[in-house]
Amino acid sequence: VGVLDADVWGFSVPRMLGALGKPVGFNDMILPLEAHGVKVISMGHFVPEETPVIWRGPMLHKAIQQFLGDVWWGDVDFLLCDLPPGTGDVSISLASFIPGASMLVVTTPQDAARKVAERAGKMAERTNLRPLGVIENMSWFICPHCGEREHIFGEGGGREAAETLGVPLMAQVPLVPALRAGGDEGVPIVVSDPDSPAAVALNEAAEAVVRATKSKVGKPLQLMAR
Amino acid sequence: VGVLDADVWGFSVPRMLGALGKPVGFNDMILPLEAHGVKVISMGHFVPEETPVIWRGPMLHKAIQQFLGDVWWGDVDFLLCDLPPGTGDVSISLASFIPGASMLVVTTPQDAARKVAERAGKMAERTNLRPLGVIENMSWFICPHCGEREHIFGEGGGREAAETLGVPLMAQVPLVPALRAGGDEGVPIVVSDPDSPAAVALNEAAEAVVRATKSKVGKPLQLMAR
Repeated sequence: VGVLDADVWGFSVPRMLGALGKPVGFNDMILPLEAHGVKVISMGHFVPEETPVIWRGPMLHKAIQQFLGDVWWGDVDFLLCDLPPGTGDVSISLASFIPGASMLVVTTPQDAARKVAERAGKMAERTNLRPLGVIENMSWFICPHCGEREHIFGEGGGREAAETLGVPLMAQVPLVPALRAGGDEGVPIVVSDPDSPAAVALNEAAEAVVRATKSKVGKPLQLMAR
Repeated sequence: VGVLDADVWGFSVPRMLGALGKPVGFNDMILPLEAHGVKVISMGHFVPEETPVIWRGPMLHKAIQQFLGDVWWGDVDFLLCDLPPGTGDVSISLASFIPGASMLVVTTPQDAARKVAERAGKMAERTNLRPLGVIENMSWFICPHCGEREHIFGEGGGREAAETLGVPLMAQVPLVPALRAGGDEGVPIVVSDPDSPAAVALNEAAEAVVRATKSKVGKPLQLMAR
């Protein structure tokens, strides 16, 4: 699996995956960093974490092009691209470079977030991307003191977005302090505490993605079909 | 007070302020909508909430220019511009249209968010905007069942961002379900429940902004000074 952090301005994937450091070059290609068995490339590998990337769209386009074309991803089963919020230059560029790619729409349960996420999903349809499913984040919070469940951000946003876009709701990920802490420390909760309800939900989402994706693994080549 | 929703792709201000409807024109100017005594203009007033705005940078630039120049803001004390996340086209354009404007940096307590917010604040310095202060959102959660306080998103992000940027931490806004609900229903918590800890924190932030802003109100004109 490879992770391309396409959020050029708001990069945070290197910190969250613990993939810090500088990529090295090899035969005119850039080798991605590796963390927890995942290959990662991000603008954060090329500028200090403190430095703002004050770029307009054409520069973003070029960065995405390089991340896709000049990075030696090797034979990955999945290349996940973390998109910035919105329906702007990065999303348009990515859709033009890899038409037909699948898009996972992430929302919180709340109406205001759902509306923005639905627009991103509709953008996918218009730009030759394929909305694959919805993941609801911050679905509820379980108080570590009394064990009660609280729907801080409301309820139903993931379900409604999935219905609007005609795709399945792949997972509801509860808000767990350990998930946030793992992100800040570079150890994802699926590694640090795989039995946590949040990790279980994230693994469910990963399995749903695998199931939903057409794969040629194990299938005979149809070279003689026509 | 006027609110210019500069998040052209991710607009949600009309819903959150309850300023829905269509603006009308008057003498070649656009009249902003009004809600709770606040004038509002947003891309959400010109396209249906369901429609994605699939625009590259130059179109965003033009939209911001129109929101600033073709909207009849009148004699407002403050014009608040809600920026999209990131340090891209909208921020660059806005900085070029209103150099010297002040920027409020909003972060959560968590490290990953703080780093992104700090970069936005540093971008302000480089583009002739003035970082004015930091507002920490989602600072902690008070369980409505047992009353315990939980720092879901960690601690210290607002304080650290303020120190890095050399500006005051203006408020810490706790995570309160009523705040989210008010946003979805179009009635801000400062209106619906002004005694809520979140509303108190937001009012503190507003007062800090007023104090931090140079004002000529009540001061004699210094026409003869030189």
